[in-house]
Amino acid sequence: MADKVILMDFWGSMFAMRVRIALAEKGIEYECKEEDLWTKIAVKSPLLLEMNPIHKKIPVLIHNGKPVCESLIIVQYIDEVWKDRSPLLPSHPYQRAHARFWADFVDKKVYDASWKVWTTKGEELEAGKKEFIEAFKILEGELGDKPYFGGETFGFVDLSFIPFYSWFIAYEIFGNINIEAECPKIIAWAKRCLQKETVAKSLPDQKKVYELAVHLRKRDGFE
Amino acid sequence: MADKVILMDFWGSMFAMRVRIALAEKGIEYECKEEDLWTKIAVKSPLLLEMNPIHKKIPVLIHNGKPVCESLIIVQYIDEVWKDRSPLLPSHPYQRAHARFWADFVDKKVYDASWKVWTTKGEELEAGKKEFIEAFKILEGELGDKPYFGGETFGFVDLSFIPFYSWFIAYEIFGNINIEAECPKIIAWAKRCLQKETVAKSLPDQKKVYELAVHLRKRDGFE
Repeated sequence: MADKVILMDFWGSMFAMRVRIALAEKGIEYECKEEDLWTKIAVKSPLLLEMNPIHKKIPVLIHNGKPVCESLIIVQYIDEVWKDRSPLLPSHPYQRAHARFWADFVDKKVYDASWKVWTTKGEELEAGKKEFIEAFKILEGELGDKPYFGGETFGFVDLSFIPFYSWFIAYEIFGNINIEAECPKIIAWAKRCLQKETVAKSLPDQKKVYELAVHLRKRDGFE
Repeated sequence: MADKVILMDFWGSMFAMRVRIALAEKGIEYECKEEDLWTKIAVKSPLLLEMNPIHKKIPVLIHNGKPVCESLIIVQYIDEVWKDRSPLLPSHPYQRAHARFWADFVDKKVYDASWKVWTTKGEELEAGKKEFIEAFKILEGELGDKPYFGGETFGFVDLSFIPFYSWFIAYEIFGNINIEAECPKIIAWAKRCLQKETVAKSLPDQKKVYELAVHLRKRDGFE
């Protein structure tokens, strides 16, 4: 039986972008079901509520009818099922743990700080900016002079962090941050990742994401 | 070369308990380095700052000199390195993703809610209690009539959640919650887990944990 793969997606979600990159890296064909999270009130589809009743969030990967939720768990699932091509996690347990640690760092530190940067103001925004720059500098230190986080090839940590690049203009404008001045190696790394077709085709245009952020700030009363 | 395994531990931490259970399940001998997080001001050891400079938290597993941090990542590392005995994660990718999803649910929902239950008061405590009971009822639904979360044998989700049992008396007293009345199947499951020597020897006494909570509430000004 041919695999039937569906991605419950939203174009502006960095978590969904991770899954798109993983599917592209593995060369897996799939059907994309876009959830409309753009209109005045986000409406969650009956399929989303059925497939992810606990968190009710995209991305969800539906593989032969069975749902897998949470982006890093989905990416590991994809890597384990289609293990014969383009490995995303390293093969050695210690390096796997190291990759999981940094992807988790992106989830715990980068996401929270970046959320504050585009949704808050005043003191909370200032605290968010500080956390944002700290997290980026820690990641820059971890990257060092390597081309990718895992070394010579694009992998799990790169895939986990690069989707945030599509939000960089939004962070820079709302947070009044110059990411390139703060972390030039992160920008050089991001441009290197974008040279890969699997990444380039999975990330939306930064200006389009900025317009999404403008819209969501108005819709959700963040400004 | 024999493996040299060190656990940077704190007896009252549910995250450290997870690692103790995993090491016990695998029958791995290790040296335990207890971090003193009990005295008036918690002092982090130079070794902890060296081994986990990013989060500065226990547990840290030091395997032949190399640190692995974050409890669920450590448990997966242990499962991958000592893969010849007592598997903790299922072997099938879908079941692995399912187990990771529920362990992540414990981290995201149970931990946050339980923290609020013993460290806050007033409206915040009421909100925390509601989230706590909701999360427990969701877990009870996922457990269903199975003996363990993974089915017939103790595994990754059980190991991730059972350490919270040692804090149940603290949650019940500070939150005025009757967990058995709310979720009788969770209590039956917990007692089943405690019948395993690997679990029983890894969890501290509930009254000792309650005293720790009383002490920490005073020390950190939560009351």
